[in-house]
Amino acid sequence: MPTFKLTIEYDGTDYHGWQVQPGMTTIQGTLQKAVKRIVGKGVHVMGAGRTDSGVHALGQVASLRAEFSHPPDILRRALTSVLPPDIVVTAVEEMDNDFHAQLWAKWKRYRYTILTRPYPSALERRYTLFVPYPLKIDAMADAAKTLIGTHDFSAFQAAGSSVKSSIRTVLVAELRQEGDHLLLEIVASGFLRHMIRIIMGTLLDVGRGRLRPEDLKAILEGKDRNNASKTISPHALCLLEVGYQPFTPHASRPHVLSQEVCFP
Amino acid sequence: MPTFKLTIEYDGTDYHGWQVQPGMTTIQGTLQKAVKRIVGKGVHVMGAGRTDSGVHALGQVASLRAEFSHPPDILRRALTSVLPPDIVVTAVEEMDNDFHAQLWAKWKRYRYTILTRPYPSALERRYTLFVPYPLKIDAMADAAKTLIGTHDFSAFQAAGSSVKSSIRTVLVAELRQEGDHLLLEIVASGFLRHMIRIIMGTLLDVGRGRLRPEDLKAILEGKDRNNASKTISPHALCLLEVGYQPFTPHASRPHVLSQEVCFP
Repeated sequence: MPTFKLTIEYDGTDYHGWQVQPGMTTIQGTLQKAVKRIVGKGVHVMGAGRTDSGVHALGQVASLRAEFSHPPDILRRALTSVLPPDIVVTAVEEMDNDFHAQLWAKWKRYRYTILTRPYPSALERRYTLFVPYPLKIDAMADAAKTLIGTHDFSAFQAAGSSVKSSIRTVLVAELRQEGDHLLLEIVASGFLRHMIRIIMGTLLDVGRGRLRPEDLKAILEGKDRNNASKTISPHALCLLEVGYQPFTPHASRPHVLSQEVCFP
Repeated sequence: MPTFKLTIEYDGTDYHGWQVQPGMTTIQGTLQKAVKRIVGKGVHVMGAGRTDSGVHALGQVASLRAEFSHPPDILRRALTSVLPPDIVVTAVEEMDNDFHAQLWAKWKRYRYTILTRPYPSALERRYTLFVPYPLKIDAMADAAKTLIGTHDFSAFQAAGSSVKSSIRTVLVAELRQEGDHLLLEIVASGFLRHMIRIIMGTLLDVGRGRLRPEDLKAILEGKDRNNASKTISPHALCLLEVGYQPFTPHASRPHVLSQEVCFP
């Protein structure tokens, strides 16, 4: 039975996150229903990682095993045609039989987008967090660098999480202004629950002067969730890419489309 | 009583267009209710032009006269705070008493955005039209140039329209590819009902080889709606800017924000 790798784009606004939950509409559940309609029986769709309720993806990856003897691109078209318009399968590849979207993933790349102009945006409201107050961006960028490396990220993990290890390796933590957008781009071997949303909340407190850049080190080393700032909204977070090869900063970029939407 | 000029951004997806209609949720109606909540009585909000149901705006302009003695920016903030998140007042200026958003408008700039990649987009589905078939873009750009100048645009007007004159002046009709987006940018003294949507539908027929670029001239000169192609979807159309000074190609650009949204 062949194994397929799906690359998936979704607008998480109307979903209760990736993972199947009884009585809830989820991305994974919706995909599994779509696969069932096409291959005729229930199949487990394994995601590279769970995304929270409201989080979007341009490059989520999932694996599945199914009896499907047509070319993979036929599966892509068939899935997209039965999925709702806020979930799109952008690529399907046939893989080695032991391919596993989660276990084989070497890194994930996310982006958090802050809208830094004096007024909110009607067209971007689903994808950006509007922050009307001035931010010290250099201080935020300095603070973000503290996160790079292999650390115990307990301080940036949702309270009550029960993963075996809270040690993760952050490869990139880059903050930059592009027009009206302040972007945090973060690449890591994996992320703890709410990790990026707590990190971004803490960086915003640096940006508004409530914390100093050097406080990030003490928060990280303290391993205490109470020292970090609040978990901010999921709706401005987007999973850009999942890597299955060792991370190289520039090689990864071309995989993700440069998109400008309708905005001038 | 002072006169104000509002600049407005809106996501038209959930509205029955700009103009008030009984029993329908419209942009104008929603704005009028918001103004009433702030100034305490009903006020007519005059738009520079009507936008169809589903059409978006980054720079719609409206005028209103109201007793409001605080600085204009207070009115902007107050309006945005009572409006739903898909309508944002991005600027308020106090104007000469005879300022009239519609009568004073010299030109309007619109953009129609086609998504030209092999698969649809979950995140851009509200703002772009997905066209999976290959397009001859040079032919489309040539055809678009035919529209520049002062012409009777009857062929590109919704059937049954009853405006006094169907003569309009098109100043810019530029088609260009930017990444996965094929954009029609069009500036004119004014537009007939459905004009841009019929033009873009006709240009798509040029792009797919059903019409030749030179056919545009015959269609324009024939002044018969039946010769042009079908009216395409409003959801990929966006009113970018309304000009109150004579149009100069480059001077107009900086008024509109360069926006990249959350996309990488």
